Amino acid sequence: VDAVVEGVHFRRAWSSPAQIAARAVGAALSDLAAMAADPGEIYVTLGLPAGTAPGFCEELADGFVAASRRYGAVLAGGDTVASPVLFASVTVVGRAAEGEGFIQRSGARPGDLVAVTGSFGGAAAGLMVLEGEAAANDSGSLDPAIVQALITRQIAPQPRLAEGSALRGSGVTALIDVSDGLVADLGHIARSSGVAIRIDGDLVPMQPGVAAVARSCGRRPSELALSGGEDYELAMALPPEHLATVRNAVEGKGCDFTVIGEVVSGSGVEVSGADPEAGSLPGFDHFR
Amino acid sequence: VDAVVEGVHFRRAWSSPAQIAARAVGAALSDLAAMAADPGEIYVTLGLPAGTAPGFCEELADGFVAASRRYGAVLAGGDTVASPVLFASVTVVGRAAEGEGFIQRSGARPGDLVAVTGSFGGAAAGLMVLEGEAAANDSGSLDPAIVQALITRQIAPQPRLAEGSALRGSGVTALIDVSDGLVADLGHIARSSGVAIRIDGDLVPMQPGVAAVARSCGRRPSELALSGGEDYELAMALPPEHLATVRNAVEGKGCDFTVIGEVVSGSGVEVSGADPEAGSLPGFDHFR
Repeated sequence: VDAVVEGVHFRRAWSSPAQIAARAVGAALSDLAAMAADPGEIYVTLGLPAGTAPGFCEELADGFVAASRRYGAVLAGGDTVASPVLFASVTVVGRAAEGEGFIQRSGARPGDLVAVTGSFGGAAAGLMVLEGEAAANDSGSLDPAIVQALITRQIAPQPRLAEGSALRGSGVTALIDVSDGLVADLGHIARSSGVAIRIDGDLVPMQPGVAAVARSCGRRPSELALSGGEDYELAMALPPEHLATVRNAVEGKGCDFTVIGEVVSGSGVEVSGADPEAGSLPGFDHFR
Repeated sequence: VDAVVEGVHFRRAWSSPAQIAARAVGAALSDLAAMAADPGEIYVTLGLPAGTAPGFCEELADGFVAASRRYGAVLAGGDTVASPVLFASVTVVGRAAEGEGFIQRSGARPGDLVAVTGSFGGAAAGLMVLEGEAAANDSGSLDPAIVQALITRQIAPQPRLAEGSALRGSGVTALIDVSDGLVADLGHIARSSGVAIRIDGDLVPMQPGVAAVARSCGRRPSELALSGGEDYELAMALPPEHLATVRNAVEGKGCDFTVIGEVVSGSGVEVSGADPEAGSLPGFDHFR
């Protein structure tokens, strides 16, 4: 279940109705990818302010149908209600074939490796560009296509459904999607599994352009990569003997795969590397 | 899927957190009763304004757990998001045993009888009392218990799940829950089935106190009963030869059962009876 509220999670000035729908569906489906489940039915509630243009409502509804189809899910039901603020709540029901099971957060064991899909910091950097905090074009060095990719990462994230599905039976012991921030979400695995996680901040792959955008705002690149959130990549723990199988499963879907650390006894998440403060960064707090 | 928004569907001054939760769950489950399905899983999204008291949030969460349990459903997931307005969106997944099927709106045929469970107008009258429009206590004739029952009907409606479930295999040809208003919801059956429905407004059972509250506000009692909505009773069509079976199924659950009209060829809903304007009443329009 995942909900987006205007002014909190999206702005109409930045996103088309189709993009608002795609972001809401993508974020909800990412929770299925995080359990290696396949998408089934999708149910959508739309809260619509009085005076919302009929054309906007139709584009939004079409967007939910299109986004559901794109990921092989079925938009099976919904409701529309009057509301002072525009919101969308998306419930997705997922399945795995009997016997294959889901991958949860709680199976990480000392000795496991810690790895991630794709790259980080893009959604946070995209938000800084959209908010005008980052004068990306004035930095002189950024390709417009790279800036556009950062913005797209923020307004239309792609859930790693194919990669999650491919991880079933691969030997992965714990899995999560990175929505709150990499360190915060690894903290969820550590807590659920009763272990500690150590990562090398310098190994965390960054989306192209993230470092330049961070520097143009006087922010540390590692801050965006380690605590930015909303990239909807997958993070996982796996026994070293399954490394080749897991790597092949992810890379077989055309997605990068990077080992960034290890599971040890203890509790919490420890970050080493060139940025001395990187380990103490908070993740996204929904109510801060 | 059913959502409630503060100021639109409930007010914190009128309802405890447990009642807000019970109303949201009850309204959503009523859509399952309307298809003669049994409740399975419930998924809840809560939109919470900044500064909402933790105690209020906990009571609300406890209320969703309690309301789900009360109807044999399982609260299986959810999300909480920051929002400028308090809202709850409830998705319920229902089932019927294989082969038994669901009852839809589209099976009514000319010659069928039209019947309803329970009584009508109570939720609308309760709202008038809550809004202070009805000076119920000043009318001099109303028992406080009757007034309280009207208020309870508004703030904590009971879905007819047991009755809906008992109707499977009874011969009912079309079924709906009355949320928008009796005439409006019978209109949904008429349209889906490609038939017309004729009812006698004088036969529609009214909750005790509805007539007195309506008169104290200068409103017609039939207006509340026929177009008030939110009573969450069931309305149905059935061939006359199944009348005894259907009546026994409903009354066996301790619920009143009343035949109020018939299905004929044509389209629309026609209301006869003592109130000459009763037939032209609009139902609840969510965006009016």
